Amino acid sequence: MAIDAPQAISTAASAAWRQAHLLDVDDLTPPEFETVFRTADAMQEILSREIKRVPTLRGKTLATLFYEPSTRTRVSFELAAKALGADVVNLTASSSSVTKGESLIDTVRTLQALGVDAVAIRHPQAGAPYVAARHLHCAVINAGDGWHAHPTQALLDLYTVRQHRGGIRGLKVVIVGDILHSRVARSDLWGFSALGAHVVLCAPPTLLPRRFGEHEAWGLPPAEVEPRLERAIEDADVVMALRVQTERQHTAYVGNLRDYIRLYQISTARLRLARPNVLLMHPGPTNEGVELTAEVAQGAQSVIQEQAANGVAVRMALLYLLLAGEAAP
Amino acid sequence: MAIDAPQAISTAASAAWRQAHLLDVDDLTPPEFETVFRTADAMQEILSREIKRVPTLRGKTLATLFYEPSTRTRVSFELAAKALGADVVNLTASSSSVTKGESLIDTVRTLQALGVDAVAIRHPQAGAPYVAARHLHCAVINAGDGWHAHPTQALLDLYTVRQHRGGIRGLKVVIVGDILHSRVARSDLWGFSALGAHVVLCAPPTLLPRRFGEHEAWGLPPAEVEPRLERAIEDADVVMALRVQTERQHTAYVGNLRDYIRLYQISTARLRLARPNVLLMHPGPTNEGVELTAEVAQGAQSVIQEQAANGVAVRMALLYLLLAGEAAP
Amino acid sequence: MAIDAPQAISTAASAAWRQAHLLDVDDLTPPEFETVFRTADAMQEILSREIKRVPTLRGKTLATLFYEPSTRTRVSFELAAKALGADVVNLTASSSSVTKGESLIDTVRTLQALGVDAVAIRHPQAGAPYVAARHLHCAVINAGDGWHAHPTQALLDLYTVRQHRGGIRGLKVVIVGDILHSRVARSDLWGFSALGAHVVLCAPPTLLPRRFGEHEAWGLPPAEVEPRLERAIEDADVVMALRVQTERQHTAYVGNLRDYIRLYQISTARLRLARPNVLLMHPGPTNEGVELTAEVAQGAQSVIQEQAANGVAVRMALLYLLLAGEAAP
Repeated sequence: MAIDAPQAISTAASAAWRQAHLLDVDDLTPPEFETVFRTADAMQEILSREIKRVPTLRGKTLATLFYEPSTRTRVSFELAAKALGADVVNLTASSSSVTKGESLIDTVRTLQALGVDAVAIRHPQAGAPYVAARHLHCAVINAGDGWHAHPTQALLDLYTVRQHRGGIRGLKVVIVGDILHSRVARSDLWGFSALGAHVVLCAPPTLLPRRFGEHEAWGLPPAEVEPRLERAIEDADVVMALRVQTERQHTAYVGNLRDYIRLYQISTARLRLARPNVLLMHPGPTNEGVELTAEVAQGAQSVIQEQAANGVAVRMALLYLLLAGEAAP
Repeated sequence: MAIDAPQAISTAASAAWRQAHLLDVDDLTPPEFETVFRTADAMQEILSREIKRVPTLRGKTLATLFYEPSTRTRVSFELAAKALGADVVNLTASSSSVTKGESLIDTVRTLQALGVDAVAIRHPQAGAPYVAARHLHCAVINAGDGWHAHPTQALLDLYTVRQHRGGIRGLKVVIVGDILHSRVARSDLWGFSALGAHVVLCAPPTLLPRRFGEHEAWGLPPAEVEPRLERAIEDADVVMALRVQTERQHTAYVGNLRDYIRLYQISTARLRLARPNVLLMHPGPTNEGVELTAEVAQGAQSVIQEQAANGVAVRMALLYLLLAGEAAP
Repeated sequence: MAIDAPQAISTAASAAWRQAHLLDVDDLTPPEFETVFRTADAMQEILSREIKRVPTLRGKTLATLFYEPSTRTRVSFELAAKALGADVVNLTASSSSVTKGESLIDTVRTLQALGVDAVAIRHPQAGAPYVAARHLHCAVINAGDGWHAHPTQALLDLYTVRQHRGGIRGLKVVIVGDILHSRVARSDLWGFSALGAHVVLCAPPTLLPRRFGEHEAWGLPPAEVEPRLERAIEDADVVMALRVQTERQHTAYVGNLRDYIRLYQISTARLRLARPNVLLMHPGPTNEGVELTAEVAQGAQSVIQEQAANGVAVRMALLYLLLAGEAAP
């Protein structure tokens, strides 16, 4: 019944891969990015089959350990693992019911002792997956930690742009909205910069890190800051709208929501200022009518649904590289 | 290892099936009901095997998306999918934590983009699965929406009666209890009426839709209303007791619970007024000692456990028809 | 693809096994304990393979029904079932949202009707799994009930000691800490006593059953009580530290936490009073810095991670014995 994974996977993955964990994209080299993308191409081929399953990771187990609610990321990891024949156990925890730090380590140590091969961790505290990785020899994947990083999101964003443009180098990428609280913005900034894009951050001052100079203190790559959307968006190849996280009660930062919409909402008219073949992206879930109009979210330039779909292939690639990568020729 | 699905499945399913979703039973034709039942017969055969698994839906994924708590329905869908070799991802959500409407659409659109083939939705708002279906090309199954409909429950109820009586036409079916708040009552009324049974609704006036004439406004089929249980139950072939949903704080409607029990509880003495071979049914979970006595719930005429068991076969049939139906010869 | 379970499993399991459920260890005979251990040895071999999966329980379903939160026990059962090819459905419930007793019975009856073959139950009320077992012909496994019993934990503790010492008879086993609220202590006391160890209970009077004489009233085997840790630990072969369950607000019993730590914390110095090859055990999750120091928890004598790992093999053995045991030659 089971069709073995195509030669294509191991060929794609045969290039450089030296990572034991995936904690952020800031320590990936350009060849490693390329290895992820080529492996994801092979995974896309599997997902296009009538029976989109291979037994490549049979007998391996992924644990998803989510201390924050999530739909798309958790399900995406679960589907990616199952498409490769791995088993999945799901753990959710409210960070209030666990003693922070200690308890995370105890939990992941136990998961490892139980025979889990990889743990995808989402945690409200920046750095939590790093702490876990220090105590584990099984693979740790950061599925989002506080405001810090969301590397699988960045990789799927890069992969989606690469599919449409053939590459990243030289593109103008504008990230619009709540940069301050966005782990996606941070990881995207790293990834797009590393591969040679020109990144512009566009947000009201209250939604930017207080002094942007701090960025460099954090070791973030340099980025242009342009608070006026009309100027930022000019000639953009990619516009990435971020969610206005009203549920995190950051409305104080956003100020008057009507003002935000008036100045920063991505609309058809504004998108016309970008390149004709601009890609409209969003990490989801969208607030249609807030950070972007329903018209552009569902419009011809939107690749939002493709981002979600590509996420499965990219996570399959990562699970393969982390769990079977050593077997590649 | 894996034994292929028997010829019986595709033969059973070769009759009429034109539905892309299952939102209610009100748009099923009698031949479509029959197709479900015959396909469920083939599934029963699989479930009676030593190894009750076939790989028919291998590589397909069912998502259960439950905005209300559930045990039997969610697990029944999960077991049905797994028996056919499909994968399952479970999502639960409290409807308070999501923006209604918008967010449901966003969630199901994402699930579809992630490669999910079918979504079973339970939602406190009537109509929610219809809204989802309008935005999806993957299959939507209504697993219960508000007070509106619960079509898989109706199908398993019909299937259970058909197993015992050979058919539905001409039977007297009495539904007793909280008709007002019961999606099961509405879907059962549709299904039993469509297949030629005579349905009698029996409830105190406070647990019936305020003016029954409204029913017709909703397009419900005509039904006899008989508030006196002793008269309603006379010569009944089927007695369906509904749960008194004390947990939904409808006790105001129920009035004095002692009065309800005195007038409407299904007891051995009252069941004796029905036909000797009457089937006692209940959609579960039962409140023994309230809407029915423990004696009748566990008695010889009770088919309550059979209903649960048949639910797996019926849901297997639906998943097959929705996800592989086009492949049937 | 699938490699059949080795002859070793059925050979190991061919000895005495007459249990339909696993409710506690108090009704296991020494040959039955030995059957579990030998079957677990065969399971360890499977878990050491490159692809740690066999199809022995293919088509069987385990339901985990947890009325209390858990990580390690639930995941351990889930991984054990999957390693044997069984499917798993997970159900969680807050005991507040369900009517106690009635509702548990209704739930397990339904699970059985849905085709579930085994149910692992964790419940805050002592005796709940017994109630369930009385109403079921499918297998019930007690995954922890109130303060009463946790038989799979006791079996994995015994198995871990047996691996290191070759057997249990004649060993001195000291259980330290909150005996009063510990189902682990009760089941361990039973299991270690049944197999001929000498068990010493060490706790402040507030964390022991009020009059230890009551123990005998409950039918517990006799045990030495020694409230002074330094004396209890002398020449011990096994030291089992129990969690100080601060989250259950038993701090009143613990009294001053600093006093508890001063008198009862397992430290390197205190562990030196035991035999040189003493095994330090803990059912997890640990409160490092409270009932034991981080140094001993991570030290050379600690087998805490092994306990977790062995739990998967022991639960595989139990699932095999309960679900396929009758097929053994």
